[in-house]
Amino acid sequence: MIFPRSSGLQGMQTFLNITMSVDGFVAGPNQTLEQPLGDGGEELHEWILGLESWRRQHGLEGGEATADDELVRQTHERSGAFVMGRRMFSGGDGPWEDDPNANGWWGDDPPFGAPVYVVTHHRREPLSLGATTFTFVDGIKEAIRQARDAAGGRDVQLSGGASVAQQALNAGLLDELDIHVAPRLLGGGVRLFEEAGPRAIELQRVVASPHATHLVYAVG
Amino acid sequence: MIFPRSSGLQGMQTFLNITMSVDGFVAGPNQTLEQPLGDGGEELHEWILGLESWRRQHGLEGGEATADDELVRQTHERSGAFVMGRRMFSGGDGPWEDDPNANGWWGDDPPFGAPVYVVTHHRREPLSLGATTFTFVDGIKEAIRQARDAAGGRDVQLSGGASVAQQALNAGLLDELDIHVAPRLLGGGVRLFEEAGPRAIELQRVVASPHATHLVYAVG
Repeated sequence: MIFPRSSGLQGMQTFLNITMSVDGFVAGPNQTLEQPLGDGGEELHEWILGLESWRRQHGLEGGEATADDELVRQTHERSGAFVMGRRMFSGGDGPWEDDPNANGWWGDDPPFGAPVYVVTHHRREPLSLGATTFTFVDGIKEAIRQARDAAGGRDVQLSGGASVAQQALNAGLLDELDIHVAPRLLGGGVRLFEEAGPRAIELQRVVASPHATHLVYAVG
Repeated sequence: MIFPRSSGLQGMQTFLNITMSVDGFVAGPNQTLEQPLGDGGEELHEWILGLESWRRQHGLEGGEATADDELVRQTHERSGAFVMGRRMFSGGDGPWEDDPNANGWWGDDPPFGAPVYVVTHHRREPLSLGATTFTFVDGIKEAIRQARDAAGGRDVQLSGGASVAQQALNAGLLDELDIHVAPRLLGGGVRLFEEAGPRAIELQRVVASPHATHLVYAVG
């Protein structure tokens, strides 16, 4: 950590937690169901795969206990509920009965350990897998509202993708941006800030390793 | 500084030195001759204005001697020649006789202290102002070639803007990217990596303060 700065923020936070390339992409070009992060997109997340806390969340042993690891552990512990877009959940966007990945990417026991709210126009009953319940909500504002109610006083993590991040930022629903800058130039794909308007932010914290630079901004 | 890493690079380097917002812009929307950096663009550079080494380069006294300042000093000292785009030089893009700012932004004594090569299709004799000579060259490749010849064994700084940065990166002419990430979301403007292709990079060094995060990448 280079410097921690008191954010002055009080109480429950809603924060974006997302990995971006140096050229601003959260996924590469040519996304498919087989390659949901597009060309080069999986490489963005290499920084996290070897960390002890990430591996433990995913039922794996071992891993490194670096400054990145401590950040990932803190981020997970503060998250009392999660919000994500439909594409991040399943890769699809149409009616659920046409979605070959309608139960998401994470198998029988997703690693969240807290309620997850999925933003979608397509109605669906809640889905419980292992210790995680996914609730399907129409609209980012309502999803964040329900997540705050469910978070038990902890913070609400908006996990992506770019579209819900832009919607939340533009609607003034985010208190904090946690951006993990991966040392990659993807050259195309899905831009994190494609449709985001101007906004005042303040740098709070920087954690860095050769694998990624972690930037925390308070949103004004 | 969080970590310095030996780059493995030998000899004279050509490096990009540029400030970018968190959402990837080097200038805001609505650029005019009166407001060449567009809406909010000047705020990107606030991090440098109070630093001792920057102030000394510009003939001003005082200033802070922070880690950012040390970085700016090192960057200036290693720069044996500069390359920039026509728009960065004058804000114009047509024939010189139609350019109301044809001698650039820096007055009678520009702060470079080394030869500057300006990329332009429009022919012009060299221009000497104070200790700085501006030479006008057609094409980024030829400009970098001439700058390397003139740099006296020191490095060549590509100072921007976005267009020449993309041209140099895509042509494989850059060894290093020095990106100063300013804590701003501009919401529009000129993207640093708009037309840049995918490329392997490696994080070498991070320097951070509340005013900016300085990221140094070696280009593979």
